Parts: sequence; structure tokens; C-alpha cells
Amino acid sequence: MARTGQPVQRIHIPARNARVFSVSKGQFIKVIDAQGKQVADFFAFNDQDRSEVLSPTYTRSALGRLYLEEGKALYSNRRRPLLMVVEDPVKRHDLLFAACDPVRYREYGIENHASCQVSTLSALRERGFTPSEFPHPVNLFQNVEVKVDGSLSIHEPVTKAGDYILLRAMEDLLVVVSACPQDQNPCNGWNPTDVMVEVYGDG
Amino acid sequence: MARTGQPVQRIHIPARNARVFSVSKGQFIKVIDAQGKQVADFFAFNDQDRSEVLSPTYTRSALGRLYLEEGKALYSNRRRPLLMVVEDPVKRHDLLFAACDPVRYREYGIENHASCQVSTLSALRERGFTPSEFPHPVNLFQNVEVKVDGSLSIHEPVTKAGDYILLRAMEDLLVVVSACPQDQNPCNGWNPTDVMVEVYGDG
Repeated sequence: MARTGQPVQRIHIPARNARVFSVSKGQFIKVIDAQGKQVADFFAFNDQDRSEVLSPTYTRSALGRLYLEEGKALYSNRRRPLLMVVEDPVKRHDLLFAACDPVRYREYGIENHASCQVSTLSALRERGFTPSEFPHPVNLFQNVEVKVDGSLSIHEPVTKAGDYILLRAMEDLLVVVSACPQDQNPCNGWNPTDVMVEVYGDG
Repeated sequence: MARTGQPVQRIHIPARNARVFSVSKGQFIKVIDAQGKQVADFFAFNDQDRSEVLSPTYTRSALGRLYLEEGKALYSNRRRPLLMVVEDPVKRHDLLFAACDPVRYREYGIENHASCQVSTLSALRERGFTPSEFPHPVNLFQNVEVKVDGSLSIHEPVTKAGDYILLRAMEDLLVVVSACPQDQNPCNGWNPTDVMVEVYGDG
């Protein structure tokens, strides 16, 4: 498979930053936790019609589960599959939490903290695009424990350096990946680090 | 308390329909399952700035749980409290599922089935308002079992005739309640019925 050969794009996402990139239908996207214990907020828009966006809520509704599943899709706000989960050795991602934003850090008493929302909007502006409503992310590698009483606990990711998820684009996509800057809870092991993305051809 | 006196508004929502209404900051909204086993999809917009909308995702993030809680708020896409849960004898509502829409019924092979999305948009148009992105509902009385493996099962609601939830508006709100028309799964006990709403003054 082409995805084990040379990547057609390699994108380095420095800690606390986000990057935008385009992928064509059929291409593979490998999101890699470079140093370990790092969450990657993942956003995707149909590049032929950017009002169609990856949606954790429609993904949960379509899968009938709280978690991603290998061989199953990630769905858009039109209930259409936008990406396929090809390989998922980690099997621990989050479809429940909103992206961090300035309001969230103000609750900790911190002004001007980097956030996935601000980084993502800034990355999208490079492509001249501002979504009408900020979408919710698929929080790759985010380790959320759901207790029997429904309470949610954020733990350190189980990932070590080099752990990844491999997705396949089912449409032409505009993608943003944000290396989450959250350092006020265990979300990123208290130490935000880099994320790598590799894009592989469709064979 | 005024909320036990005469309601200032009483809104009858016939089975498979939605209704729009305005409430002022401080008023109480009692959503009543009229005949039992009926889900009410609940949407709310800040009527001073309708880009601020009730958000199940931000509510989960703020509460750190999958469920509503008496004495706690329901949050907006700005992470601000829009409503308070004043009384919740039922304690079984859903913050996970998208509203039903025509695509969902087409998956069952049914064209032109009523849906919460279409009914809600139609109700909002009466007020000259179409949201830029269709919001996700708080699915009052929806009985979703979350299994340990993360799979979600929709069961018949536990509600009987007259069961209710009492909310308080923390802003001036434009509200839509949709009596969910889903009859292809146990969501509404296989028999969609009416919802009643009563609005009470703030004292």
C-alpha cells in the first residue's frame, strides 16, 4: 500500500499550534503523537462544500457508540461518512469534549493562553475561511474515562512517542490539526508537545 | 413561588410537531410529557444575540458529565449558562444524540417522514430566523443506556403521563420544543404523543 511508502505531505505541528492542509479523496492521513501523551484536536471540512463539516455528534449517533471504531467512518453534519478509521492501535480518543478556547482558560484565571479554538481559526484564515459556527473536534488520543454515574474524568493519554491513528479521506477535505495547548489538567500529561501528520497517496 | 400558580403561557405541542415561544430572563419553563414515554427535543437561543445557542457539548464539558443535574446549568456555545435545572424528578435525558432529520428516516427507507430538524426549522421561520448551523438538542426524557464498552442503546422513556422537568431561563430566550416523531425505534415507546409546555413568571 502507498501509505507505507513515502508520504506526499509531512506536516510538523509544533506544541500549542495548529496547521491546515488539504487532502484528496482516497488519501490517507496519519496523525502521530510525536513525543507521547499529546492530544490532537482534529477538524475536517468537505472542501467542495465547506458547510459540510466533521461532526462528533453525528458520528456518535451513526456509530451508536461513544468511541471511534476501526473499519468504521467518521460522519459529517449531513450524516455522511467523511473519513474512515483504517488503523487505530491506540483505541482511545474522545468524541465528547469541546475544543479549549479563551473562555476555558479564563476560568483558570489565565488570559491570553493559547487554545485549540484560536489556533484552528487562525489556521483556517490562511485559506480565507471562517466557519459560520465553530465546529467540535474529534479529540485524537484524548483519554476520557466515562464512569457508571455518567461523570467524565480526563486522564493522561495512554500514547507513547510514535503512536498514531490512520484515517482515509472519503471526500476532498480541508483539515486542521491542533496540538492541544491544555496544561491545566492531565489532558496532555501536563506538558503540551508536538504532533506530526503524514499524508499518503491512495495507491 | 409563582411557578406553582397560573402559567403565563401554556403551549400545546401536538405529536410530531414543534412550537416556538419566547421566555424572559428569570421565567420558569415546565416541559411536560403529556401522555408518557415521549421525548421532547429542546432548543434555545439567546434572544438578544441568536448566534448564542444552547449546546449539549459545552454543557457536557462544563458539567464534566453525560447527564443534566438538578441545581446546575445548561450551557451555550459561549460556555455561558443559559438555563438552570430547577426540578428534575425524571433524571433521564440525553445530551449525546443529534436531532432526527430526513436523512435519518431515509436510512429506514422512509421518505417525507416528520423530523425534529424540519419541524424546528419551520417553527423558527415563524420568527424570521434560520440558524447558520442547525444546533444539537437537549433530548428531554430520552432514555439512552451507555454500556461499559461505550455502546449506546435507546430504550423507551421511563416517563409516565404528567412527568416533567422545570427549567429557569437565565437570559431572554427563543425556545423551540419538538415532540419527537421517531417511531422506528423505542425512543418514544413506538408511539409519538403530545408535549405540553407551561411558562411561569419569575415571582
